[in-house]
Amino acid sequence: MKMTNSAIIPIRKPPKGGETVNHRLLVQGGFVRQLMAGVYIYLPLGLRVLDKIRQVIRAEMNTIGGQEILMPLLHPAKNWKTTGGWDNIDVLFKLKSRTGKDFALGQSHEEIVTPLAKELIRSYRDLPLALYQIHWKFRDELRSKSGLLRGREFEMKDLYSFHASQRDFEKFYKEVKNAYLKAFKKVELEAKVTEASGGGFSEKISYEFMVTTDAGEDDILYCDACEFCINLEIAKVKAGSTCPKCTQGKLNKAKAAEVGNIFDLGQKYVKDFGLEYRDEQGKAHYPIMGCYGWGTTRTMAVLVEKFHDDKGIIWPKSVSPYHVHLIDINQGQQGELIYNRLQNENIEVLWDDRSKAAGVKFADADLIGIPVRLIVSEKTKTNVEWKRRMETTSEIIDISSSIDRIKQLYNQL
Amino acid sequence: MKMTNSAIIPIRKPPKGGETVNHRLLVQGGFVRQLMAGVYIYLPLGLRVLDKIRQVIRAEMNTIGGQEILMPLLHPAKNWKTTGGWDNIDVLFKLKSRTGKDFALGQSHEEIVTPLAKELIRSYRDLPLALYQIHWKFRDELRSKSGLLRGREFEMKDLYSFHASQRDFEKFYKEVKNAYLKAFKKVELEAKVTEASGGGFSEKISYEFMVTTDAGEDDILYCDACEFCINLEIAKVKAGSTCPKCTQGKLNKAKAAEVGNIFDLGQKYVKDFGLEYRDEQGKAHYPIMGCYGWGTTRTMAVLVEKFHDDKGIIWPKSVSPYHVHLIDINQGQQGELIYNRLQNENIEVLWDDRSKAAGVKFADADLIGIPVRLIVSEKTKTNVEWKRRMETTSEIIDISSSIDRIKQLYNQL
Repeated sequence: MKMTNSAIIPIRKPPKGGETVNHRLLVQGGFVRQLMAGVYIYLPLGLRVLDKIRQVIRAEMNTIGGQEILMPLLHPAKNWKTTGGWDNIDVLFKLKSRTGKDFALGQSHEEIVTPLAKELIRSYRDLPLALYQIHWKFRDELRSKSGLLRGREFEMKDLYSFHASQRDFEKFYKEVKNAYLKAFKKVELEAKVTEASGGGFSEKISYEFMVTTDAGEDDILYCDACEFCINLEIAKVKAGSTCPKCTQGKLNKAKAAEVGNIFDLGQKYVKDFGLEYRDEQGKAHYPIMGCYGWGTTRTMAVLVEKFHDDKGIIWPKSVSPYHVHLIDINQGQQGELIYNRLQNENIEVLWDDRSKAAGVKFADADLIGIPVRLIVSEKTKTNVEWKRRMETTSEIIDISSSIDRIKQLYNQL
Repeated sequence: MKMTNSAIIPIRKPPKGGETVNHRLLVQGGFVRQLMAGVYIYLPLGLRVLDKIRQVIRAEMNTIGGQEILMPLLHPAKNWKTTGGWDNIDVLFKLKSRTGKDFALGQSHEEIVTPLAKELIRSYRDLPLALYQIHWKFRDELRSKSGLLRGREFEMKDLYSFHASQRDFEKFYKEVKNAYLKAFKKVELEAKVTEASGGGFSEKISYEFMVTTDAGEDDILYCDACEFCINLEIAKVKAGSTCPKCTQGKLNKAKAAEVGNIFDLGQKYVKDFGLEYRDEQGKAHYPIMGCYGWGTTRTMAVLVEKFHDDKGIIWPKSVSPYHVHLIDINQGQQGELIYNRLQNENIEVLWDDRSKAAGVKFADADLIGIPVRLIVSEKTKTNVEWKRRMETTSEIIDISSSIDRIKQLYNQL
């Protein structure tokens, strides 16, 4: 992609209302624009990052047997009245049609997926069933000031599973947990599996996947010796005390952002909608249901909070909008030649072909944060200058070597 | 994908309210489920078809320089009040937040893209600008009885372009028209470019891309000798009369479905939002704006209306959910062997590995409508039986030959 293209140009001036790092840098870098509090437009660069995050999560969901579907955003009120959500969930957006019919905007999809599963599940042979989608959600938040961390409109991956037994649910739950940890590793985030409350409808403990960041809206206590981690909301221990699990380490307090979660929904929703399956003897049972969320747009925000410096964003390579940022100082033929050659190798290139000063181009590249920068200038002749975003040194290498290095860095593409 | 998988199994019983062919066959084939009138769930097979339709259109939009973005679904009322749409558009869904703020649900995105373009466009150097998205829309329709043809919630590709002059707009308009015709060819639909009214805010003529089908909600008059085609709503001629364009052919009347459209929006929206650019002399002008829609979910419906027989759907190969439907009658090792071998060749396979009678499997394959069927049975030994969905004959060939044929059919994948 060429940067003589007004939809992907960074802006110098920090945006109004940019109280958080993710909001400020994502707007300045040309990734998003705020339409209103908690509601964002995704520009070409932002959509590319979002799509890469989706792909990382989608691959793991497919590996564990999740089947991708797409559920509507506009829901009949009836479904939400069936579960009690219509009256109990204060963030539920409600609206009326011209003819007076009541609708809700999906803030989660249990109310849609459970009646769907009721159509798909007849007998024990149809279990387990795992359906997921990557789609938008709406929440009528009173306060939306954390950039992409807390949206009125945001995207998430939501997986729902149905099981013949609690034991089968527990088995699948572990598979999802491992899939999540793999996906976190791929986007270079360290997630703490945190005990939390089960939400409005459950006495059970849920698990949140928390990434420590000062921009986070949760407080967690984590052990410095073992994996124990608990949301402060439900903790019966205090910061500084000995870990109740390993009895060795000390508990530290930290701010964290919840990127994913796992709920044991038990039989709440299947009972509400009368979803039963027949066992081998033909006897009817309610299945056990689980739900597993992952915020895709929130992941983008957390990545920016974790990976930036005072010059801009530093994207992990798995979600960088492009593989390479090509900076062409002289705007000669050499830039176009390398641009075409890299593209022929299936390398994704952002080419700064603008007639701007070198300093402007370097500053914009720092803001955008692509891991590899190739510079073409008078001094590089037929070679290129190779520089990593997080390093201060550069070196001049030939073009073939740069291609080899890029392929190696991005796992042979 | 294996069919021992309850989310992709066809159902025999025609659905309630399945008045149109597309609704009935898409539900029976396991592609969608209706949540309420005009609002559908996309099951794994349906999502795959939708995604292939998106890809066909996306490729053409990128080729003409369109830049993909994603705009919110929840809009501030202010934007719609600025253009007059808040009071004039009867299908606009409106809602209030808990704190009393007014929002609209996007039924189109001129109200969002124009202020965005105002931020991106400063001078003539930033023009032309072409932004598009593939995203959901909401319309408060009084009547939603044509299956996926008229949705309360539906997906479309919407492209918006901004130009320094009417002449530049006309040039780009022709490029979009050609891109559309290429995409129609790829999905094997013949579209008639039809003169229509410019909609609520324009005296100008717009162009609709109409596909003739009895399920369509429009009436068109088309010439049997030249390309002239006009929406009956604005026609000043009658069926049977001589074509006003070529003066040779006769005008025929037909039912048609509008799959795409092109509007010359002139300066309506740019004036409403005060979007100006500076020319080379620094003088301010309003650009010319165009918008170009394409219904992706509606395309799925039109394809089913056009390509089906009394047994089920017959997908064009570019949008078939899978390349091959593998039917394994004996459920022996041979089926799995071929399944793995095809997948290793990057061939997308739907494998009916269920313990069902051959007749059930053949009937389900006919309903689903994948263009190529491979059958493994006792009589095929180490070979396979090759059958096209729209042919009645089959032949036994070896597996390598079947792979060659599949690759040739799908353009080497």
